[in-house]
Amino acid sequence: MDIVQELLAGSPRALSRAITAIENEYEEAFSIMQKLYPHTGKAHVIGITGPPGAGKSTLTDKLAKKYRENGKTVGIIAVDPTSPFSGGAILGDRIRMNELTMDPGVFIRSMGTRGSLGGLSLKTSDAAKIMDAAGKEIIFIETVGVGQSEVDIVKAADTTIVVLVPGLGDDIQAIKAGILEIGDLFVINKADRDGVERLNTELEMMLDLNQNKVKWRPAVNRTIASRGVGIDELMEKIEEHRTYLQESGELALRRTQRTRDELLALLEEQISRRVTEKMRASGELDFLVASIEQRRQDPYSVVAALLDAYLI
Amino acid sequence: MDIVQELLAGSPRALSRAITAIENEYEEAFSIMQKLYPHTGKAHVIGITGPPGAGKSTLTDKLAKKYRENGKTVGIIAVDPTSPFSGGAILGDRIRMNELTMDPGVFIRSMGTRGSLGGLSLKTSDAAKIMDAAGKEIIFIETVGVGQSEVDIVKAADTTIVVLVPGLGDDIQAIKAGILEIGDLFVINKADRDGVERLNTELEMMLDLNQNKVKWRPAVNRTIASRGVGIDELMEKIEEHRTYLQESGELALRRTQRTRDELLALLEEQISRRVTEKMRASGELDFLVASIEQRRQDPYSVVAALLDAYLI
Repeated sequence: MDIVQELLAGSPRALSRAITAIENEYEEAFSIMQKLYPHTGKAHVIGITGPPGAGKSTLTDKLAKKYRENGKTVGIIAVDPTSPFSGGAILGDRIRMNELTMDPGVFIRSMGTRGSLGGLSLKTSDAAKIMDAAGKEIIFIETVGVGQSEVDIVKAADTTIVVLVPGLGDDIQAIKAGILEIGDLFVINKADRDGVERLNTELEMMLDLNQNKVKWRPAVNRTIASRGVGIDELMEKIEEHRTYLQESGELALRRTQRTRDELLALLEEQISRRVTEKMRASGELDFLVASIEQRRQDPYSVVAALLDAYLI
Repeated sequence: MDIVQELLAGSPRALSRAITAIENEYEEAFSIMQKLYPHTGKAHVIGITGPPGAGKSTLTDKLAKKYRENGKTVGIIAVDPTSPFSGGAILGDRIRMNELTMDPGVFIRSMGTRGSLGGLSLKTSDAAKIMDAAGKEIIFIETVGVGQSEVDIVKAADTTIVVLVPGLGDDIQAIKAGILEIGDLFVINKADRDGVERLNTELEMMLDLNQNKVKWRPAVNRTIASRGVGIDELMEKIEEHRTYLQESGELALRRTQRTRDELLALLEEQISRRVTEKMRASGELDFLVASIEQRRQDPYSVVAALLDAYLI
């Protein structure tokens, strides 16, 4: 059996190998994804994002356990866009070793940037598709941070949960402005800390202001993930959102949008890789860089000329 | 006079208009950059990044004032990659209104993502070039966050300062793994807080481990930016790094690398825009998305076919 057949038959080893192929951009990655693609589109993908220290990993673990208790198989992708060595992600794995890895119904995978060419959001999305094809029913994509790359990563999710904690300080306004649109559900974790009421009020106010733009009004949930407080209620909200997505037609709309975005991102990546390779191989790249550095040409005119040279 | 001549003659209005053209991707942006490019390459660009709440804006302001006292003209670009509405950046501006905006030797500009197609890091880099051509001698690029997009943004800097604060919690390891390579200088701000010794020790240990890879050993500086503590020493370190860059030949190496990266990024952006426009206009994009959604085709095979169709 080839790796795709093994994966469809439920082999965790094949699942792991397929994601490794994507992560390291092995030659076979492209053909693996081609063969897997018809088997995707069944899982519910849950994105979990928020600033460092918000307790996202613990929250994900507790939610994963609840879904397991309800008989669902679970995949977890822990993404660390800040780390070329997936240092943080490895740390996350270690903590999880005792908790979930003994359960064959759970598959956990860390992903970092690995210093490679391709975009992490594309790889994360592919990893989710691989888990989906392998039969995982609930897939968590958990990502550290609140920047653009994290927003891009959770775009692969059907339901996005933004996790905050009380007492984050000055830049909280900036964070909230950026994540307001991507959050389907908000969680204030570590809700036994000072400042929880203030954060809750601020969040509700911002969501109220945003309300006329959206059909779904995100709920603000409180949890203390380390003690399991609020997890049942959060899972209920996730299921409520899932039902909303299906019944409103929003799920179909989002998936069409996602298909479009991913197609364009994949095309962009492959085109620029192909052109860059050609330019490197011919020595054209070095020549142009030197010429621009010496201010004999400017990069904008150079690019205009390259478009004419490489595009039909 | 056209906008470029005005800008080169020192008009702040022209400077502002040029950056707006870049930010909003106006038609004229490309030709503005073409004309400006020969006048760039003189400024020293300082990147300032770090997690939310680290006090980056205050630190930038204090450094800017010091440089002004030393007779240098200053540009500040406050980037907020999390915010499509540059909400956070606007907040930053408001605070700065009283402090620096009265000084004609300082030009401050906020940039958010504005929901546009182009990459924020390219635009930030172009904004820095515009300020450079307009004669600003020291340019600060300050960005909220620690994700990949922030790392990309500070790649436009000659000297990158990573600002941390004591007591950030669990994910600090992940942050540090990601920023270790980009930091030329480290600052522990709010150094009167608990945990400063521990953070300092941790940072020094990580930098020691990394030491054999680099010629320049980043210093860890302590500041309390709100009270101006440690700013003189930090500026000395910046100037030390600048001298190192020039004397070691590292500045030339970095700028060549940056020219290469920016050329490829610009090319990638323009190619994918051109191809996407063609696909949209012809209806091909909608057709392919529908076909992929219905699992009649997979995106990987579609992209392979598109490469053959659009590339020479």
